[in-house]
Amino acid sequence: MSHITSMIETHPNITTDLDVQKLADCIAACFECAQTCTACADACLAEDAVTDLRNCLRLNLDCADLCTATGHLLSRRTGSNLATVQAALEACRVACAECAVECEKHADHHEHCRVCAEACRRCEQACADLLSAIG
Amino acid sequence: MSHITSMIETHPNITTDLDVQKLADCIAACFECAQTCTACADACLAEDAVTDLRNCLRLNLDCADLCTATGHLLSRRTGSNLATVQAALEACRVACAECAVECEKHADHHEHCRVCAEACRRCEQACADLLSAIG
Amino acid sequence: MSHITSMIETHPNITTDLDVQKLADCIAACFECAQTCTACADACLAEDAVTDLRNCLRLNLDCADLCTATGHLLSRRTGSNLATVQAALEACRVACAECAVECEKHADHHEHCRVCAEACRRCEQACADLLSAIG
Amino acid sequence: MSHITSMIETHPNITTDLDVQKLADCIAACFECAQTCTACADACLAEDAVTDLRNCLRLNLDCADLCTATGHLLSRRTGSNLATVQAALEACRVACAECAVECEKHADHHEHCRVCAEACRRCEQACADLLSAIG
Repeated sequence: MSHITSMIETHPNITTDLDVQKLADCIAACFECAQTCTACADACLAEDAVTDLRNCLRLNLDCADLCTATGHLLSRRTGSNLATVQAALEACRVACAECAVECEKHADHHEHCRVCAEACRRCEQACADLLSAIG
Repeated sequence: MSHITSMIETHPNITTDLDVQKLADCIAACFECAQTCTACADACLAEDAVTDLRNCLRLNLDCADLCTATGHLLSRRTGSNLATVQAALEACRVACAECAVECEKHADHHEHCRVCAEACRRCEQACADLLSAIG
Repeated sequence: MSHITSMIETHPNITTDLDVQKLADCIAACFECAQTCTACADACLAEDAVTDLRNCLRLNLDCADLCTATGHLLSRRTGSNLATVQAALEACRVACAECAVECEKHADHHEHCRVCAEACRRCEQACADLLSAIG
Repeated sequence: MSHITSMIETHPNITTDLDVQKLADCIAACFECAQTCTACADACLAEDAVTDLRNCLRLNLDCADLCTATGHLLSRRTGSNLATVQAALEACRVACAECAVECEKHADHHEHCRVCAEACRRCEQACADLLSAIG
């Protein structure tokens, strides 16, 4: 996702009051977590033990939806809707936290859940950091 | 969206502790608002006065993203992730409220903004009602 | 989705060379199929026989993604990108057809698959009709 | 997007008949192009010359929708729906090509369009390469 910072810096709006690095990190984490959760849901579906992974699959899909939406919101800077951005970041943070807890339960048996838990924890932290920065 | 209730009732999970009507109404409102906001953003873009509608277009796009994500989350009932669903509903409610306020400013000049504000207010209310029901 | 036609008619661009009804029907079918496929995937996941429904769940998720994207594309009319719209309609039509074939296999055992197959067939037809109209 | 290859390799399905690198490259290109097009649409909206960028903004939004959908489809490997995947890749390739042509027209005046055209061309090529590999 090497273009994220370029796109922030070439936007016509000024970035003086913006923590560009925190914003770029959070956008990258959202897109990465969306991809990883989508792939983890599909890997869970293919496992012999799929019946033990129902909750994991569900949380993966919800987390992917919220990460995708939040990644797109954060990619916009025209206009002003701080309350919406904050609520989206909070929803994304909660979804990542719940999905991470579930994936971590299966991390010893399913490597894709271990990798996915990592992506969720990183995105959870990136959302928390950005919320603090804009709060 | 006549299939929404059918899909809830044919789901293998029981619906005893579920307000089926409130859930179905909120899913319908989310999808309708996502479509309307996407169309309103495009209509704003085509207006001669597009430079006065920048904020409206931005809020429309953010609202569409969150309504789409929330509509998909609410369409799932397997597993358990109440905190994520509540946070998504709250984010969707806030986005609809902010978008409605903006669209209402332009409702006298642009009929598409008037229609869109209605869809946003209905979805805002449906999210609030569902949050109360599951709270 | 009662707002769809209102949003087409209140768009600043003229509709003289546009089959408004076919467009509105296709947008409605895309959003309905996206919702139904998302719900069917989740219902399949909750079934005791989930291991027999893996392919159905996968096709449901892919179909939901393409219906969502196509529903959003069709909600825009500013600018000009006919080749993209045609290719999206074709991808959506193919996804609906493949998902319908799979859901129909399970329609006798799972009512949600029967309802979902109907939504897929309706959307497949609506995409084909719109492709003919704009071809 | 360092997790993409890990998620392919830890999936329970075998990868013998799969060009893992081409698949991973295409997934990464889809997510990057989705983010870049979303950001370019927003940057176009903030420009003084937004009235000259209407078509660019529209194509950006359509391209983002199809790249998002295709990136999610390609992240799944359970089950079998080759026709849908091929049609999605073709729609994504066409959208990227049309968006690249438009962004290239503005590349001299708007650096964000130059960066976005690059992301579109890379994704167009990645889709074409993957289509050849699975054809």
